[in-house]
Amino acid sequence: MNSAELLIEALPYIRKFHGSKIVIKCGGHAAINDETIDSIVKDLILLRYVGIQPVLVHGGGPEISRVMEKMGIKPKIVNGLRVTDEKTMEVARMVLIGDVGAKIVSKISSHGGKAIGLSGKDGKLFTACKKESQKVTIEGVEKNIDLGYVGEIEKVDPEMIEIVSERGYIPVISPIAIDDQGNSLNVNADTVAGEVASNIEARKIIMMTNVDGILRDREEDKSLISKLSIEEAQKLLNDGTVKRGMIPKTKASIKAVRSGVKKAHIINAERPHSLILELFTDEGVGTMITES
Amino acid sequence: MNSAELLIEALPYIRKFHGSKIVIKCGGHAAINDETIDSIVKDLILLRYVGIQPVLVHGGGPEISRVMEKMGIKPKIVNGLRVTDEKTMEVARMVLIGDVGAKIVSKISSHGGKAIGLSGKDGKLFTACKKESQKVTIEGVEKNIDLGYVGEIEKVDPEMIEIVSERGYIPVISPIAIDDQGNSLNVNADTVAGEVASNIEARKIIMMTNVDGILRDREEDKSLISKLSIEEAQKLLNDGTVKRGMIPKTKASIKAVRSGVKKAHIINAERPHSLILELFTDEGVGTMITES
Amino acid sequence: MNSAELLIEALPYIRKFHGSKIVIKCGGHAAINDETIDSIVKDLILLRYVGIQPVLVHGGGPEISRVMEKMGIKPKIVNGLRVTDEKTMEVARMVLIGDVGAKIVSKISSHGGKAIGLSGKDGKLFTACKKESQKVTIEGVEKNIDLGYVGEIEKVDPEMIEIVSERGYIPVISPIAIDDQGNSLNVNADTVAGEVASNIEARKIIMMTNVDGILRDREEDKSLISKLSIEEAQKLLNDGTVKRGMIPKTKASIKAVRSGVKKAHIINAERPHSLILELFTDEGVGTMITES
Amino acid sequence: MNSAELLIEALPYIRKFHGSKIVIKCGGHAAINDETIDSIVKDLILLRYVGIQPVLVHGGGPEISRVMEKMGIKPKIVNGLRVTDEKTMEVARMVLIGDVGAKIVSKISSHGGKAIGLSGKDGKLFTACKKESQKVTIEGVEKNIDLGYVGEIEKVDPEMIEIVSERGYIPVISPIAIDDQGNSLNVNADTVAGEVASNIEARKIIMMTNVDGILRDREEDKSLISKLSIEEAQKLLNDGTVKRGMIPKTKASIKAVRSGVKKAHIINAERPHSLILELFTDEGVGTMITES
Amino acid sequence: MNSAELLIEALPYIRKFHGSKIVIKCGGHAAINDETIDSIVKDLILLRYVGIQPVLVHGGGPEISRVMEKMGIKPKIVNGLRVTDEKTMEVARMVLIGDVGAKIVSKISSHGGKAIGLSGKDGKLFTACKKESQKVTIEGVEKNIDLGYVGEIEKVDPEMIEIVSERGYIPVISPIAIDDQGNSLNVNADTVAGEVASNIEARKIIMMTNVDGILRDREEDKSLISKLSIEEAQKLLNDGTVKRGMIPKTKASIKAVRSGVKKAHIINAERPHSLILELFTDEGVGTMITES
Amino acid sequence: MNSAELLIEALPYIRKFHGSKIVIKCGGHAAINDETIDSIVKDLILLRYVGIQPVLVHGGGPEISRVMEKMGIKPKIVNGLRVTDEKTMEVARMVLIGDVGAKIVSKISSHGGKAIGLSGKDGKLFTACKKESQKVTIEGVEKNIDLGYVGEIEKVDPEMIEIVSERGYIPVISPIAIDDQGNSLNVNADTVAGEVASNIEARKIIMMTNVDGILRDREEDKSLISKLSIEEAQKLLNDGTVKRGMIPKTKASIKAVRSGVKKAHIINAERPHSLILELFTDEGVGTMITES
Repeated sequence: MNSAELLIEALPYIRKFHGSKIVIKCGGHAAINDETIDSIVKDLILLRYVGIQPVLVHGGGPEISRVMEKMGIKPKIVNGLRVTDEKTMEVARMVLIGDVGAKIVSKISSHGGKAIGLSGKDGKLFTACKKESQKVTIEGVEKNIDLGYVGEIEKVDPEMIEIVSERGYIPVISPIAIDDQGNSLNVNADTVAGEVASNIEARKIIMMTNVDGILRDREEDKSLISKLSIEEAQKLLNDGTVKRGMIPKTKASIKAVRSGVKKAHIINAERPHSLILELFTDEGVGTMITES
Repeated sequence: MNSAELLIEALPYIRKFHGSKIVIKCGGHAAINDETIDSIVKDLILLRYVGIQPVLVHGGGPEISRVMEKMGIKPKIVNGLRVTDEKTMEVARMVLIGDVGAKIVSKISSHGGKAIGLSGKDGKLFTACKKESQKVTIEGVEKNIDLGYVGEIEKVDPEMIEIVSERGYIPVISPIAIDDQGNSLNVNADTVAGEVASNIEARKIIMMTNVDGILRDREEDKSLISKLSIEEAQKLLNDGTVKRGMIPKTKASIKAVRSGVKKAHIINAERPHSLILELFTDEGVGTMITES
Repeated sequence: MNSAELLIEALPYIRKFHGSKIVIKCGGHAAINDETIDSIVKDLILLRYVGIQPVLVHGGGPEISRVMEKMGIKPKIVNGLRVTDEKTMEVARMVLIGDVGAKIVSKISSHGGKAIGLSGKDGKLFTACKKESQKVTIEGVEKNIDLGYVGEIEKVDPEMIEIVSERGYIPVISPIAIDDQGNSLNVNADTVAGEVASNIEARKIIMMTNVDGILRDREEDKSLISKLSIEEAQKLLNDGTVKRGMIPKTKASIKAVRSGVKKAHIINAERPHSLILELFTDEGVGTMITES
Repeated sequence: MNSAELLIEALPYIRKFHGSKIVIKCGGHAAINDETIDSIVKDLILLRYVGIQPVLVHGGGPEISRVMEKMGIKPKIVNGLRVTDEKTMEVARMVLIGDVGAKIVSKISSHGGKAIGLSGKDGKLFTACKKESQKVTIEGVEKNIDLGYVGEIEKVDPEMIEIVSERGYIPVISPIAIDDQGNSLNVNADTVAGEVASNIEARKIIMMTNVDGILRDREEDKSLISKLSIEEAQKLLNDGTVKRGMIPKTKASIKAVRSGVKKAHIINAERPHSLILELFTDEGVGTMITES
Repeated sequence: MNSAELLIEALPYIRKFHGSKIVIKCGGHAAINDETIDSIVKDLILLRYVGIQPVLVHGGGPEISRVMEKMGIKPKIVNGLRVTDEKTMEVARMVLIGDVGAKIVSKISSHGGKAIGLSGKDGKLFTACKKESQKVTIEGVEKNIDLGYVGEIEKVDPEMIEIVSERGYIPVISPIAIDDQGNSLNVNADTVAGEVASNIEARKIIMMTNVDGILRDREEDKSLISKLSIEEAQKLLNDGTVKRGMIPKTKASIKAVRSGVKKAHIINAERPHSLILELFTDEGVGTMITES
Repeated sequence: MNSAELLIEALPYIRKFHGSKIVIKCGGHAAINDETIDSIVKDLILLRYVGIQPVLVHGGGPEISRVMEKMGIKPKIVNGLRVTDEKTMEVARMVLIGDVGAKIVSKISSHGGKAIGLSGKDGKLFTACKKESQKVTIEGVEKNIDLGYVGEIEKVDPEMIEIVSERGYIPVISPIAIDDQGNSLNVNADTVAGEVASNIEARKIIMMTNVDGILRDREEDKSLISKLSIEEAQKLLNDGTVKRGMIPKTKASIKAVRSGVKKAHIINAERPHSLILELFTDEGVGTMITES
């Protein structure tokens, strides 16, 4: 099989997704690993050229921690809950928008694509309100802990995404929201991806992480679950099979599919070109969540 | 190398040609050979999906002969020159527009693309005037032979191509022109392709034939010339190296490049997906003619 | 009354139909008779200039028979039913698209209009499925006869008509449909006209034939019925007053009016400029079918 | 010849003028004569329906005089020159815009067309400056007579005409200009028509008056001159053959043709439908002025 | 507080009304008083520049009377009802369209804005039918009095307003309607303003008059009512608190608010820049009528 | 003088600048001073509402120093020249894009405007190449000092500014450029403002700083120069009157005016609403530089 035939084999998939919007979430680890982000960026550009409108949402936890450390800011943990005070918020905003997001945009440019960095503040793309304080029991006493500048998304106004996406730009979104008073709030990137996908009527949401998908047994790679209905996914959340960082990914996937996104995928960002493999070949990778 | 990597390798070529118009000429043999035309049609659809606007011009000589024979019409040959009388013209029009063109359009549809059959009459796409009578010497006497309904292109009005191409349709053009009085005239398909390419400001013209390109020695496949300037190509025309069916292809290529088309290619339609190979991979095939 | 006054008299009718779409069906006899088609073509061009969007659907039975005969193909008749085998289908396609349709388009061009030849394959304008085999009783035994490449329209996608009509072109439609596999199927031209009229939200459908309209007594011209409701028309179909070629015209008219076309007319193509007379003067000609 | 054939005979003319802008000037007599204006209005509506964009400029001298008389305002004549004082100006504006113009617009509406009344003030369609005072010799003494609110056109801004004409409205223009300070100025309607024609790139200007055209001998109808070059027309102006009210018409015609209007016509408004006769039939009426 | 700060104070109001349509009615007294109309005109231009689309409807009673008097036409009063005969109608049309309307348009032009004069006839902006004859009792006998050319609005077609308003022009509307036969009819300007406001989906209607608003006690300026619901306003109409010229203003305001206009204001035209004060400052002036 | 009159007084200025693009540069001090930036942001929003398209370019030097200090990064100074190594570049990018720019965008949102943060990387808004190394003499030896990641602007592609500005957004631009390889380069914000102004065909460029303008004598506020031609400004640069931070502002102003920007202004950001005062009132503030 020569190379032209291989391209031709992708044709039915290209046709299927032509004109669709696809939201891709990549985590902080992927975003700051040069090789991984290079592979993702090339895939995004190819998607644009075959008529797909990709929207990227990125995280950036590890990088935020690194900069905080350098600046001598200690993480505030109250009874196991991380509190985002004003200084932490400022670092998060600088790192996510001015470092991680800006670097991805630059990479897309240097590979010949066109991108634009956005966050919740740009054209009020997404607004949030402060998350309610959490009840915790410290030494037998119930207390309310104010998590600080952590937000829950209230409203997404996708106009800015549409304006730039229509004109050939790839939006690169940092998960910093704005509230009524113009304050910045830290929001979960998985949730942002899910909300954006629902609001732009995306066809797919793809969560890129550093494992192969949802595993029945976290210690056993071979226990990967290929396909789940949202009902089954919810059960795995309830019974604790889905753990830790996979929880918001699974929740956001379920919510997106419930609001009309056709399919959610959880795939491994570290497999080269896993995006293209997932979209354009028969070899499905990762876990796919569909309505039923 | 997996298929995703291959697609990524094609990215620089896709980027380069994105938004370009490319005119492809395929001959009568290719047009009526199911396997060959299937391969071409799939390539055309892939081109559309990656943002290229292909325009196909087809020939149909062998099929015309086959139908004429069935209808008991004998070819008129005067001193080696083929004369197109009214009946022959009618058959040519029926076969080119109603058979060859219509079949290609159907094939594109059944492979999931959108096409439209056109000829010179549709929106006066191209008009012609009767070719001058040819001087020949018969038994020592010089005579003028009227070639009948054979035309030379006078004017191309590309509006119809642009209207449909803009909206995602692949124009499939049969080489039947119209004259002032509304008569049909048979025109050379290579010439049509060249004139259309010049008039729609195509980036490339690709002549698909049944040999690998221009050969220095017609008996020797290995004598393929990979690259020619228009000056060199003209020389090969003048010194007789370029012969027979390759003559109009070479002439039309030279003319197209002179009018602003960047590159002309002569490639072998019988190599599967030679169009994609030529456009999207490093392995160049056939002969390329450029300005210098 | 001078000529200017006569033009002014047409004003209320021109105003009434300005901006409307009107589907005109002309039969095979009309299409190949030079004088008749000239008169129709001039009328179509005038309609365009006064702001009406005409769409022409043509037949071509007699011409198909003539070419089949020349090619030595014998019609297959099984128990009185005509069977369209592959060869017959090919001839039908060549003649309808490449001969009759192409000629009409040329005529419109040479009279100064702009036209484009279309069939079901172009942009999947209309798709069909094979007609069910027909039960017939041969020598007392009931048999299923496969009618071959004869289709029933399944879906009309009027986009192509709209694209070209908006830009000033007159679509000339040949009744060849395409099926799922890309095969050509012969469909009844009256039915095509009716389905197209419903799908483009035409204001009128005008069936041009070689008699003056629906007659109460086929032998008696004076028995012409000027006006029918669809209910009355259905009754005439049921009681056998409407016969032979008039049956599909009447059926298609009824169906079109049921789907929202305001009026259907059956008029005589052989009366010069009967189209204009019907549309722009008080002297109604032929039979008009309305909802009630 | 029946009415359908007549319409068909008009086809070449309709084609020729389709999409053109034509400026028509009708004088005060025509504008207030019910029968004449009815005929003109019907002609204008027909023009719109066949794709021509007519623009009407009207005069109104006789009506102004009638109203002035009723209001007891006496015309000021100094040494044979009419002076427009403020009161006269007010009456002129009221009559031209509020009476003559408004009536024509109403007539077009009641005949089924769409019109809009405009004057120089609307969107600063045309601005003027006061005409210089005229030197006259009274009783052997040379004096400067200030003509009052009489203007010479300085600038035409055709935007408003284009906005409404594009949307299907017929502009009806009253010859009242506006100056820098917002004052109204009376301007010659023939001049307005000529300037508007030049500025909207009209194809034709048609001056409708109450004689058949330019006559060699004013007493002799048969001395009508059918065709003049602008050079010849200028000569007739210079040698005094063209007299009185015909002078501004001829001057405006010459100027319009010089600025690119293809043809100017001077025709008789009292011949019913002379507009249509001039434009759509072979029977030319009146005098035509062309570049050479 | 410096001038820049004052401008900044207007910002929230500008933001609120940006992109809205606002209908302003000014009465005949205002329209012909140079100072008042100058103030209104400047306000209108400012509104356009800050992104509001103002539409002006004017009256003109006093001016009509003045001209009638000059022309020696006596008002016809039958039993206290004013009858508009044909002559009166002609004067009203001339004065309203050709004098008052034209002057306002000129003023807007000379202050640097762009305006266009319209009335019901222009593009059939509003059509009316004759008002029914009124029953009156004269000397104990009940009689029907035909009020002549007085109309009630039947239909508003706001297309012309939208065409010109979109392009930056301020429509200046004279209250002359057109009926089926093309006759002019005098209509109440307050009613025109109300109907126009409802039909263009205006945000506000502002009635400018020569008192400060609705007073509880006509003799006492301090009895001004600042805010009324439509219910309360209706009660004041019913119990006779609202009198004379304020009646149609109040009725039109109520009707407009009922059809979706958010607020109606009745303000004093004689207070300089009362329009701007009402819209852009906290100092509300006049009476505001809202739904509840 | 009440507030309505004040707005009316601003009318001629609003009219003059309506539809213009104006580039405003504010320095780092202004950008991080809450009161100053609040005043600027309100002014920008008012400009948008009156139809002006403002584009803001900000600096951020003091903030970069503050964060560097916190992160323990020491400025590298070689012979008085500041060197931007990779770490410094990263901090600069984070602070300018993720802190200063993001905060201004948030402020605009919270005051009811719509903004978007951009830098050179977004849609390749501006690209730069590394500044040549500088020759310095250290201890008598001439040496080349590489300034590191400091760039000179090569190309501005204003498409992204136009896309968002057209749709009502205020672009807030951080002075970080991108080079061929996708590296970030620090560029002078004054230069960015000047280049952007030239490339978007701005009408004005306004440099906001913390002094009142160009002073003849830096110690003497009263020596403010109100108006300069570019020639005079050049002379003041040459003779050293213009010093330090004023140098790039003056150079960028001269260059912008040379490329077609009508006027450049240098004004004091610390005077409240100095932008509005400069644009909309007679009280000119600061120094204005014009072509002659």
